[in-house]
Amino acid sequence: MPHLVILYTANIDRLTDMGALCRELGDAMLTVQDEEGRQVFPTGGTRVLAYPAPHFAVADGGAAGRAEGVAGAGRTGVASDDPGDYGFMYLNVRMARGRSAATQQRAGQTVLAAVRARMDPLMQGRHIGITLQVDEGHEVFDAKHSTLHPLFAKK
Amino acid sequence: MPHLVILYTANIDRLTDMGALCRELGDAMLTVQDEEGRQVFPTGGTRVLAYPAPHFAVADGGAAGRAEGVAGAGRTGVASDDPGDYGFMYLNVRMARGRSAATQQRAGQTVLAAVRARMDPLMQGRHIGITLQVDEGHEVFDAKHSTLHPLFAKK
Amino acid sequence: MPHLVILYTANIDRLTDMGALCRELGDAMLTVQDEEGRQVFPTGGTRVLAYPAPHFAVADGGAAGRAEGVAGAGRTGVASDDPGDYGFMYLNVRMARGRSAATQQRAGQTVLAAVRARMDPLMQGRHIGITLQVDEGHEVFDAKHSTLHPLFAKK
Repeated sequence: MPHLVILYTANIDRLTDMGALCRELGDAMLTVQDEEGRQVFPTGGTRVLAYPAPHFAVADGGAAGRAEGVAGAGRTGVASDDPGDYGFMYLNVRMARGRSAATQQRAGQTVLAAVRARMDPLMQGRHIGITLQVDEGHEVFDAKHSTLHPLFAKK
Repeated sequence: MPHLVILYTANIDRLTDMGALCRELGDAMLTVQDEEGRQVFPTGGTRVLAYPAPHFAVADGGAAGRAEGVAGAGRTGVASDDPGDYGFMYLNVRMARGRSAATQQRAGQTVLAAVRARMDPLMQGRHIGITLQVDEGHEVFDAKHSTLHPLFAKK
Repeated sequence: MPHLVILYTANIDRLTDMGALCRELGDAMLTVQDEEGRQVFPTGGTRVLAYPAPHFAVADGGAAGRAEGVAGAGRTGVASDDPGDYGFMYLNVRMARGRSAATQQRAGQTVLAAVRARMDPLMQGRHIGITLQVDEGHEVFDAKHSTLHPLFAKK
């Protein structure tokens, strides 16, 4: 661990480069430090996976956006001219047990800042919801097997 | 929150319109009320995301369905004539902490009724499993950032 | 329950047959027994779903692999000649509450052995991380509705 999994409405793929966002979020995660200034997330275990949902339904399906769009100016949808074309992005970080609350908050704030850096300009005049949650894993079995980790442990 | 994430075998895409199911489930979620008659799930935070799995394995891989298919009449698979072509749909609702047990049950029953309304007729003579679970989130960090929510908060 | 969900970097699809891995993992899950020698996972409820992530970021993005690749011999990436082309596979088993710790460990070890049987040879000379975790579900609502289960309950 940790990982960051992003579940989002597929229309966002036409709005921004999600591969680039993954890299930006991964880079952000690698900067997180604990109270002693140590890197929280080991480089070789950090991964971001983003999944566009081909089928989705958000909020009221677009009615309120369309009603407002008539009155508003310059309103557009996520990937079309339709102001009822809503988007949603859910980001879930799963991190190992036992980190301090301060570290957990710092991890969350760091990821939040990185996703906002890319998304905030795009959200102006569009209806997009972003939710970020950090879960502490409570697994009953945990196994890691890697030819990636040693590349970084060696250093 | 809340969200509903559907993980399913991709063969179901050839059986029914999963985008329409998402909308039906979203509409159903918006009808859930608490003990005081208030809407449980805020409109601007409600989303349904459905993911067909391109690779999957279900149960015994089809042997029992094929064995029965020889004896049975009119048996077909999920997306083919093969009675060993099984399907599975897993629905997971993640809702915020602190709701009453009665509200949690009501949310679950409401989503279950909506998925059954579409799927029950299709499940006749086909081997499909549906599991619905509602989880109460236990996140250690939670952030919402939205240009969608205000569309409904204004009302 | 149970289910096994696999989230992985899409480059692994070019390295191995993930559909075959799903079947191998499903078969492995069906062999797990409890202390009394009974099958732990009911056949009709066992499913494996694998999701390639079209967008992802792993570790440092490839720099360390490329630096090592210059010095090393025969190093290749997951799906290309690029030694910075890393892969990751995350396997998550969600099983019902109330199983013994020994059964949970046995389930984890069984799935781990099955994924390693396929992946270990492919991981030689490539940078791939595998993490397997078993979670015990703590759902507040649980419903099963199936025309698949009866096929096996009948036996």
